[in-house]
Formats: sequence, C-alpha cells, structure tokens
Amino acid sequence: MSEANYSVPGFMAGGISVGIKGNGKPDLGLLYSIKPAVACGMFTKNSFSAAPVLVSRQRLKDGQAQAIIVNSGNANACNGEQGVANAIAMARACAKELKIEENLVLVASTGVIGQPLPVDKILKGVKRLVSELTPEGMGSFERAIMTTDRWPKISCRKIALGGKEVTFCGMAKGAGMIQPQMATMLAFVVTDLNIGYPELKKVFRYAVDRTFNAISVDGCMSTNDSVIVMANGLAGNKLPKEKSADFLRIRETLVCLMEDLAKDIVRDGEGATKVLEVKVEGAASLSEAKRIAYAIGNANLVKTAFFGQDPNWGRIISAIGSLGLPLDAKRVRLYLDDLLIFSQGVGHTTEEKHLHEIMSAPKITITVKLERGKGVWRIFASDLSFDYVKINSHYRT
Amino acid sequence: MSEANYSVPGFMAGGISVGIKGNGKPDLGLLYSIKPAVACGMFTKNSFSAAPVLVSRQRLKDGQAQAIIVNSGNANACNGEQGVANAIAMARACAKELKIEENLVLVASTGVIGQPLPVDKILKGVKRLVSELTPEGMGSFERAIMTTDRWPKISCRKIALGGKEVTFCGMAKGAGMIQPQMATMLAFVVTDLNIGYPELKKVFRYAVDRTFNAISVDGCMSTNDSVIVMANGLAGNKLPKEKSADFLRIRETLVCLMEDLAKDIVRDGEGATKVLEVKVEGAASLSEAKRIAYAIGNANLVKTAFFGQDPNWGRIISAIGSLGLPLDAKRVRLYLDDLLIFSQGVGHTTEEKHLHEIMSAPKITITVKLERGKGVWRIFASDLSFDYVKINSHYRT
Repeated sequence: MSEANYSVPGFMAGGISVGIKGNGKPDLGLLYSIKPAVACGMFTKNSFSAAPVLVSRQRLKDGQAQAIIVNSGNANACNGEQGVANAIAMARACAKELKIEENLVLVASTGVIGQPLPVDKILKGVKRLVSELTPEGMGSFERAIMTTDRWPKISCRKIALGGKEVTFCGMAKGAGMIQPQMATMLAFVVTDLNIGYPELKKVFRYAVDRTFNAISVDGCMSTNDSVIVMANGLAGNKLPKEKSADFLRIRETLVCLMEDLAKDIVRDGEGATKVLEVKVEGAASLSEAKRIAYAIGNANLVKTAFFGQDPNWGRIISAIGSLGLPLDAKRVRLYLDDLLIFSQGVGHTTEEKHLHEIMSAPKITITVKLERGKGVWRIFASDLSFDYVKINSHYRT
Repeated sequence: MSEANYSVPGFMAGGISVGIKGNGKPDLGLLYSIKPAVACGMFTKNSFSAAPVLVSRQRLKDGQAQAIIVNSGNANACNGEQGVANAIAMARACAKELKIEENLVLVASTGVIGQPLPVDKILKGVKRLVSELTPEGMGSFERAIMTTDRWPKISCRKIALGGKEVTFCGMAKGAGMIQPQMATMLAFVVTDLNIGYPELKKVFRYAVDRTFNAISVDGCMSTNDSVIVMANGLAGNKLPKEKSADFLRIRETLVCLMEDLAKDIVRDGEGATKVLEVKVEGAASLSEAKRIAYAIGNANLVKTAFFGQDPNWGRIISAIGSLGLPLDAKRVRLYLDDLLIFSQGVGHTTEEKHLHEIMSAPKITITVKLERGKGVWRIFASDLSFDYVKINSHYRT
C-alpha cells in the first residue's frame, strides 16, 4: 500500500510542528474518528506512569474513544499534579475544537522525562492541527510522533468479512530520543471494523501480548508506553462472535499487523544491527517459556556477541541457566537457525563455516527446546552495539 | 600490606603456566593448608553450573577442605560427563602430590565455555605447581587465576582476638575473558582463624550476601562463580560463639575484606569507568530493597547515562517504576550523592553546576528513600561503556 492509500473509512489524521522539539520538526499529531469508536488500550506497568497514561487509562474504562492527541519532545512524566492538569488541558482543547465530548479524547506523550510540558504551545496549535486533518493524514501523524526513529512505522491490512471490506492501519514509534531519555513505544491502530467491546478487548490483548509485549531492545520499561486501538464500525460487517471464524480472522489480522510494527521497532532499536528471533519450545509452562525467552533476549552478553557476529553459544546456555530452573542439561537443545549447536549436555561446533554464515545475517533465529512440557513463546530482540551506548550516553547539556 | 607480606600462617600458595591460555601467562594456581581447614563455599545458582562447581559443592558438604586447585583459560562448563571426570582428575592429581585426602581438594575454573579442558597439560603441571608452593605465593596464585583483569585483587586484614593475632587474606578475579566468554567471578579467602563450621558458615554467608552478591557489572550470571573460605585454626583463638563480640568482629572483618575485593571487581568491570553505589532505604521489605537496587544497577539506560555523565535522573525513576510496585511518587526521594534530585513527585534540577561535579566523579552514590518500611539494601554497579561492547563483541575467530 503506498502512503497515499493510508486511510481508513471514517478516520482523519494529521501532524504539525508547534515548537516542542525546538528543531522545526512535527511534534503534535491527532487521530480522529467521525463517530465514537469502540476502543481499548494497554499501557506501561511502570509505577510512575506518565500523566497522559493516567488520563487515557481512566478514559478507556468505558470502552469508547473518538480522538487521540499525541505530542513528541516531552514525556510529561514525573511532573506531579501539574502534569495531569496539562494532559487534561490538551484533551479539552482538542474536544472543544472537534466539538466532541472531552471524555472521548485520549492523550499520549513521548520525549524528555521530568521537564514541564510546554502546554501553551500545544493549546495554541490545536486549532491549526484540527483544521489540517485529512483522511490521508496518517503519514503526517506518524511523523509527528517519531523521535529519533530512523523511519516511519505504518502498516495496513484489508480483509473481507461477509462481503464487507474492513481496513486496519497501525502507526508506531519505537526506541528513540530527542535528548537522551527513556525510549518510549507508542502504537495506535485504527479500523472501520464493526465489533463489540468485549470481543475487541480479547483480540487486542491477545495480539499485543504476542507482538508489542514480546520485543526487547534493552529490557527497560518506559513511563509512557501505550498501545491503543479504535474501531468505528463503518465497515458495516456483522458483529463477530467470540471464537467464530470472523473473530479468529480479525485476531490473526491484528497479530500480523502488530507484528509488522513490533519487528520494525526492534529493527530500528537504538543502534540495532540485527534482529534476533528467540523461540522457546517445550518449557514446563507458558510463563517459564516467557522467562527463558526474555533471559536470552535481554542478556547483554548475548546481545554483544551477536553484534560481534561471534557464535558464542555458551552465553545463551548460561543466560538460560541464570534463572536457576531445575533443567537437565542433557535434554536441552539449542539451535542457531537450523543448526544444532548444543545437545546431550555438550556443544557441537564443527560446522564453523555454516555457523559463520548464520551469524553474518541481519536476522537470526535462536531456538531452545526443553522437553519439559508444552510451554512455547517467542520474542524479537535487538543486539547491543557501540551505537546503543553512543545514543544513550550523550551529554544532556 | 606489601605483596611480600601476603601470607597467612599455615597456608602455602603458588601459580604456574601450563599452556592452557596459550600465551605463556600463568593459568594454574594452588592454595594449600598444612592441615585440614574448616571450609564453606557459595556458588553460582546457574542451572548449568560448570563441572568444578558441581565437584566443589559436593565436597564442601562436610565442611572441610585442605586445598583448592584453580585453572584459568577454560571454564570446563557445558562439557558433559567428561567435564566432571576431568575436574575430579585435577583434584586427584593434586591430592596425590600433596599426599592428602582426595576429598579435601576443591576445584575451580574460569575461561571459555564449552571447550574440552586440556586436562593432560594440567595433570603434567601439578607436580611442578606443588613443588613451587611457598607461604608468600598468594600473589603468584592470584596472577594464575586472572583472565583479562587489569590488576590483581588481593586484600588482607589482621585482627586480635583475646590476645591472638588472626590473619585473613582474600584473592579474587572478576569480569574478564581470554576469548570473549562469560565473565566469571572467583574469590578465595584463607585465614588461620579458629572457628566451628556452623559459625563460619553464618559469618561467611552474611558477608558474601552483602559484598559479592551485591555487585552488578552486566547482570549476567556465570556458570562458574565460586566463593570459598578456608579457616585452619592455627591462630589458636578461643572458638567464637554465635553473636559474641568476637563473632561480630570476625563477621565485620570478613565484610570489609570482601567489600574491598567486590568493589575492586566492579571498578575493574569490563569497560567500567565509574562505580555506582546504589542505596535503597525505607523499602517495604529487605527483598523489595534488593529488587529496587538491582533494577537501578542493572538498567542499561541508567548505566549508559552515567558513562556519559548525563544527570538523567528520569531513567532512575523509570527503572524503579519498572518493577510495578505500588509506589507513591510523592513519597519517593532520589539523591545523587548529597543532592536531592526528585521529591514530591517532581524533579529539582536547579543546581546544574553541582550536579555536573557529581556526575564527573569516578564514584557516585545513588540514594532512593521510599518511606514504606525498614527495608535497606546497597549494591555496587559499574557503568556501561563503549569498551564493554568492544570487549564483548570481539570475533571469536
């Protein structure tokens, strides 16, 4: 789909510069549905969730939303009660200009933590932002939410449900910063799908768990992470019942769309040169499979080895072992792509040439098989490079 | 104490090169007590503990030891049953040459994971190693257990207990590698202290928890980490009873000595340029205090900010929040050295000049006060620099 085609019936979008970033780049974006949409969100579990997270989480309790206003350049986090007041003021200005209920406007922010939000610049910009909304404005919206993302992250899908065409578009920003700050992940999915709130919530959570919740750049959790979906129903498809063929089709579509965006975030992770797909099979439980996948994907020694294209499998084994689970080394098998590296408690490193080829690729699959049960999980992780340190150690002043 | 004075009554030590490292540097060391000593060990909790860890852990069950043989250059980990057989063979050769019980000889290894141990070189070298043992050989021993440690880590203390002089000497190796492999921590403490096994075990575990178990270079756990203490009783002091003044004195001495070594390991961490002391006070419990301290000390975004001397306190707050504890931001206070940075839910960054001075120092204290309870913990962590990535991403071939 070319950028001109990024549109979903009933949605308008746009992005402008109001001077938060201070470099003239777009920093205020808006997504708007011409009618109230069924909506769900998943947010950071950080104890110090940013003000916009507090506001949006509260407003999504009744499962409806009509607009999302997003600024980049300032996270509006660690700003106390003034931060919350400012987030509410952003939404209020937006509601007034759009002539919709204030409670239907959500807020998100990304950027510097602990600096007062320049709310006057935002309030002054809202009128222009609303006036520039267009159905094809998702590219502009995306550019306004980017920080140092190297490229925009948009993915769209169309499916047919009982003769009706349904469109999904997702926009995301990943690891990046204006000044060196916590990298924040924001993602928004808009669709004209007709769906009830309980069903939307189920497919949304299922998809987020397997995509945005299954990536690791540096294992650090932001104060601002937010994923929100809005479905305005204009496609006119029959309401899907849980576990129906349509329901499963919708769920699969959301998983694919979000996986696109999530992998793009890893690929564009700070300083990333490789994407590692970490697959765990045969764990004693789902939660054990998750813990092992993250132990590997978050281990600095594993990440640096892959950056250096060093097939240092001992670090993967050691990362698995670091959880202290009662594992039998003789029943653990480790593969890099299709190559068996470790089994029966010992390593096999005879195929050095093949191994070298595998390690040189931009995408490498690490598979761990445990023979303990049916637990399966998969995550995507980036490597750890000089550029990660460079980006994150820049002087603030 | 000058190196010539590194000696403990009744102990002999030494180190030689037997060609494991392949660069002519010492790689086989031995510590020996002229009589069986009371002994305790604490080892890695890694599920894939290396063969020497399995052997030493088993042999320490009866609380006695008389010698420790250690090689560097090969971790003897992930080597299956042959690895265990080789670790036992090292100890057996040593016992035979020293004419002591085989079961009293412990083993430790550090270096490459998953490569067969060149046990023949070791077995051939044992006779020479034993013949070169001297009471002043601890410096030689230390050099034989180093990998890419930039300096030897030895610390000694003398105390008087009821008119008897008691000597403690500790030797450690930290984060380093021959080829890029998992960094392993080994530490050995020898003393002529007279003490029962239950009391030694108590003071030893207390001290290890507060020192070697309270440091973070990269949050990765090795397959080979081992800390062992041997007390041969030759000082002739009265046996200390638990909680007596002598007992507390001994415990304090062990804490100080091990803290010396542990801090030295952090200072010499891979690529480290700064030591961060992370103090947590007022947590709801001891375990909560520990979790928070590690969440800060292990966070890559915190470590890179300190490397860059960037007073980016939002990352510390975010790391604390990432645990998802029910914290009240208004009651959290954050200090860098003596400077209050965050309180009442908002940041205070007015003293930029003072802050800059603090961030430029090689040692920085991060204090978090929570007002939730009496949980207190402290760890030492290194920063994350370009050199960490450089050291750990080297091509293996």
